[in-house]
Amino acid sequence: MNTLRAIYKTSLALLTDLYQITMAYGYWKQGLAEHEAVFHLFFRSNPFKGGYAICAGLATAIEYLQDLAFSDDDIEYLASLTGSDEKPLFETAFLDYLKGLSFSFDVDAIEEGTVVFPQEPLLRIKGPLLQCQLLETTLLNIINFQTLIATRAARICYAAKGEPVLEFGLRRAQGFDGGLAASRAAYLGGCAATSNVLAGKLYHIPVRGTHAHSWIMSFDNELDAFKAYADALPNNSIFLVDTYNSIEGTKHAIQIGELLKRRGHSLAGIRLDSGDLAYLSIEARRLLDEAGFHDTAILASNDLDEHIIADLKAQGAKINVWGVGTRLATAFEQPALNGIYKLGALRKPKGLWEYKIKLSEQAIKVTTPGLLRVRRFIDKGRAIADAIYDENLGLKANAFIVDPRDITRRKRLPKHAEDIELLVPIFRQGKRVYQPPTLQQSREKALNELQRFHITTLRFLNPHEYPVGLEEQLHELKTQLILQARDIR
Amino acid sequence: MNTLRAIYKTSLALLTDLYQITMAYGYWKQGLAEHEAVFHLFFRSNPFKGGYAICAGLATAIEYLQDLAFSDDDIEYLASLTGSDEKPLFETAFLDYLKGLSFSFDVDAIEEGTVVFPQEPLLRIKGPLLQCQLLETTLLNIINFQTLIATRAARICYAAKGEPVLEFGLRRAQGFDGGLAASRAAYLGGCAATSNVLAGKLYHIPVRGTHAHSWIMSFDNELDAFKAYADALPNNSIFLVDTYNSIEGTKHAIQIGELLKRRGHSLAGIRLDSGDLAYLSIEARRLLDEAGFHDTAILASNDLDEHIIADLKAQGAKINVWGVGTRLATAFEQPALNGIYKLGALRKPKGLWEYKIKLSEQAIKVTTPGLLRVRRFIDKGRAIADAIYDENLGLKANAFIVDPRDITRRKRLPKHAEDIELLVPIFRQGKRVYQPPTLQQSREKALNELQRFHITTLRFLNPHEYPVGLEEQLHELKTQLILQARDIR
Repeated sequence: MNTLRAIYKTSLALLTDLYQITMAYGYWKQGLAEHEAVFHLFFRSNPFKGGYAICAGLATAIEYLQDLAFSDDDIEYLASLTGSDEKPLFETAFLDYLKGLSFSFDVDAIEEGTVVFPQEPLLRIKGPLLQCQLLETTLLNIINFQTLIATRAARICYAAKGEPVLEFGLRRAQGFDGGLAASRAAYLGGCAATSNVLAGKLYHIPVRGTHAHSWIMSFDNELDAFKAYADALPNNSIFLVDTYNSIEGTKHAIQIGELLKRRGHSLAGIRLDSGDLAYLSIEARRLLDEAGFHDTAILASNDLDEHIIADLKAQGAKINVWGVGTRLATAFEQPALNGIYKLGALRKPKGLWEYKIKLSEQAIKVTTPGLLRVRRFIDKGRAIADAIYDENLGLKANAFIVDPRDITRRKRLPKHAEDIELLVPIFRQGKRVYQPPTLQQSREKALNELQRFHITTLRFLNPHEYPVGLEEQLHELKTQLILQARDIR
Repeated sequence: MNTLRAIYKTSLALLTDLYQITMAYGYWKQGLAEHEAVFHLFFRSNPFKGGYAICAGLATAIEYLQDLAFSDDDIEYLASLTGSDEKPLFETAFLDYLKGLSFSFDVDAIEEGTVVFPQEPLLRIKGPLLQCQLLETTLLNIINFQTLIATRAARICYAAKGEPVLEFGLRRAQGFDGGLAASRAAYLGGCAATSNVLAGKLYHIPVRGTHAHSWIMSFDNELDAFKAYADALPNNSIFLVDTYNSIEGTKHAIQIGELLKRRGHSLAGIRLDSGDLAYLSIEARRLLDEAGFHDTAILASNDLDEHIIADLKAQGAKINVWGVGTRLATAFEQPALNGIYKLGALRKPKGLWEYKIKLSEQAIKVTTPGLLRVRRFIDKGRAIADAIYDENLGLKANAFIVDPRDITRRKRLPKHAEDIELLVPIFRQGKRVYQPPTLQQSREKALNELQRFHITTLRFLNPHEYPVGLEEQLHELKTQLILQARDIR
C-alpha cells in the first residue's frame, strides 16, 4: 500500500518552497535544467545533545518520489503567480515542461532504522539539476521530522530499559501529519504502540487506550465508573486512578479487579497521570501486591521523557509501562532536526564532474563536495568508525579519516575489519529498485543496530563522539576547494 | 472551499486516540451515549512565557466537524481490534451505531484572530456525551497547534514593528501538515507571506521565494549566477549574497542591479543568510545606498525569532524584511500548547445539569465546572478584564472576578464598560450556523485586536498579566465542588 496515496487527495508537488520552482525555471531558461547534479541530504549535529540519530522517513520519501507529478490545478496555480511588475512569474512553455516532466533521478539512501551521525548523507540524489532541486524541501520535511522522532523514541525506550513505551502525542502534535508521521517514526524508533487510531490503521502499528478523566466524571463516583468500564470492556481494563486521589483510586481499581477476577478476566493495569509518580507508583505497587495483583501493570504518564524516566527508575519507581506524549511527538526541547540538502557536484552534458562547495561566514555551514558514500567499519560486532568518501576518489585502504569540524581529530581506518556500505540504491533513472522493508522490520533493525554501538555513544549526558570523518583524499580535496574559493591558494 | 476535503482522501474520523472510541463504546454499552454533556477546550498557560495567545484553527475545526463520518474501512479496522483476551474490542452493534451516527452537537467558539488567555474556553461543545468525546483529540490537535503558531507569528511580527515577516518553515516543519497548518496560522498571526507553495494554493496566502545557495553553486562564479537569475526572472530579483562572502556578494548584487535598472527593472533586494546580521546589514545598506539603491530591501534569515529580531533592531541592523523558518513553524522553544478538553457538566435525559470537576494532585490540573461563557470588558477602546462565567448562574453586574490560580487576586468588574461576548454560535444540532471569515479577514482581526491591549501585555519579558477570572458565583460553586469531592465540607 502507498500510504501517502491513501492519506492525500492533493498532489504534493507544490508542497515545496517557491524558490525551488523559481530556480527550476531559471535552470530551464538558462539551459541548465538537464545538467547532471548530485545533492546530499544530511544533518549538522545530533539532536538532543545526544550521540547519534536513527534514520527514518525513507519509506515515506519513496512514496512521495514515486507519485510526484504536477496536477493541472498545480500548473494553473503556478500560472497565476506574478512578480514585482505584476506580470506572470513563469512562462507557459516552462509550465508545460513541468507538466510533462518525467523524473529520471537516481536515489541512494541509508536504510530506515540505521544509526546515523552528522555529516553523513542520509539521501543522495543524482540526476538532472532541475529535478534534484524540486525535491529538496519535501525530502527535508520528511526525513528531518521522522529522523528526529525516531531518535527521540529510541532514547526514551533506552531509558525505559525494554519496558513498553506507548506514544500518546496526537493531541499536541503539530498538525495532523505531525501526529501521523510522529506515530510512525516513534514506532520505528522502538515504541510498542500508539494511541493514534489512524496511524494504527495506516501503518499497522498496535493501538492502545482505555479511558480518560471524563469517563470517571461521567459517573457519580469513581467506583461506579470503574465498574461500568469493567462491565463494558473487561478485556481492556487499565484504570486511570488520579481523577480524585491516586491512592484511593488504586484501592477502587483493586475492588473492581476482584470483580474482574471472579468473572474470569484480569485487572490489566492502573494508570497514574499526575502527582509524584515515584511515590505513587511505589504505594500503588504495594497495594496491588498485597491484594495479589502481582501481574497488574502500572502505567505512568504526565510529560515524561527519557530524562524523567531515567530519574524515576533511579528512584525505584514501580512503573512497568510508559505513556509518552508531547515530549515524544513534538520532540519538545529540540523540535527540529537541522537537516540540509546541498549540491555536491555538477557536470555539463558529456563534461567532467565539477565538485561544488558552499562557503559561509560560519564554518559549520561549509559543505562537503563530491559524490559521497559512507562506509561503516565493524570490529567484533561493534561499529568503530564511519568514513565519508567520494566515489570517484575512492576509499584508500587503511586511510585516515578527518573530523570536518576539527581537522586535527583523525583516525586510521582498520585494515581487517568488516565493513558495510551504508547507502543503498533506491531509484535508478526514476524507477524504484528497492523494496522497503515493513515498518516492523525497520523497527527491529533500529533495535538491533543500537546494540552495535557502545553504551558511551548511547548515553544522554556528554555522550562519546562516535568517530565519523572524511576519508583523507576527500578531506584534501575539500580543503583545496575552500582555499580556491576564498582565493588564497 | 473545504480545504481539508481538498487535502485529504482518508476519512479523519480515526485521527483520534483509541480511548475516545473505547469510552464511546463504554458510554453506549452503559446507556450514557445520549446524555447531554458540555466540554470546554482551553489552555493552561500562555505560550513562550508571554502575556497572551492568538486563537486560531477554528475554520479548520469547522471543516473537520462538517465532514466527520466513519467510513466503511474505518469500521472494518475497528472491528479488527482485539482486547487482552484476543476477542474483539467492540461489538458489531456498536460499530453499526458509529457508522450510522448523525452528529447533533452545538459548538460555540471564540473567533480566529481573537486575543485569548489561559482558562478561557476557546471552544465549547454541547451535545450527546459520546459525540463530544469523539471530537476531543482532533479538536485539540487543530486548535493547540494553530493557536501556538499564530501566537508565535504575532510575537515575531510585533518584534519586526510592521516590517514584513516571511514564513519559510516547511523544510523543518513537523510533517506535511506541520508545514501547511503552520503556514496558515503564521499568516493569520500577521506574517506577510509564506514560501510554502501548497499553502499558498490552498489558503490563498501570498508566496515568496527567489533562489538558494545551490543556484549560485551551479555557475562558475557568483556574478554569473546573479546575472543568469536576473536574465531569467527580472521581476523577482532578490539575491542571496552569502554563498562565499556577504560583502562581496552585495557588490555583485549591485553590479547586476545596475544591469536590471538599464533594462527597466529594479533590484528588489538582497538576502543575508549567515554571519553577523547586524554588521553585515549595516555594511550592505551603506553599499546599496552609495550605489543609489535606496529602495532595495535587505532580507535577513538564519534561525531568527522575536528575541533575535528585537536584538538586531536594538543594534541598528538595517534589515527591512525578515525571513523566519524553523523557530516560527515549529514554535521551537515551546513546540506545543498545553490545551486540554474537559467535561464541565452532564445531564441525564430530562434531568438537571450536574456540574463536574476533576481534581488532581496538581492544583493547575483542577478543572472549572459549568456551561461556560466569556465576556470581555472594554473601556475607551482598551480591553481591561475578561470574566469566565456560567450561563445558568449568569454574570452579576459589578461582580468581582477571581483568579483561579490565586484566589486572593480579585478584580471588580466595571459598571459602565462596553462588553463583548467572546463565544459565538458555530454549530447548532450538528448544523453549521456560522460563516467563517476569510483567512485574510481573521489576519486583520488579529492585527486590530492586539491594538486593544496595553503594550505591557504584549511585551516579551515578564509581561503584565491581563486580568482573567471566574465570576464570583462560579468561583463559589467551584470551591464548593472541590470541597465536596475531597469530602471535607
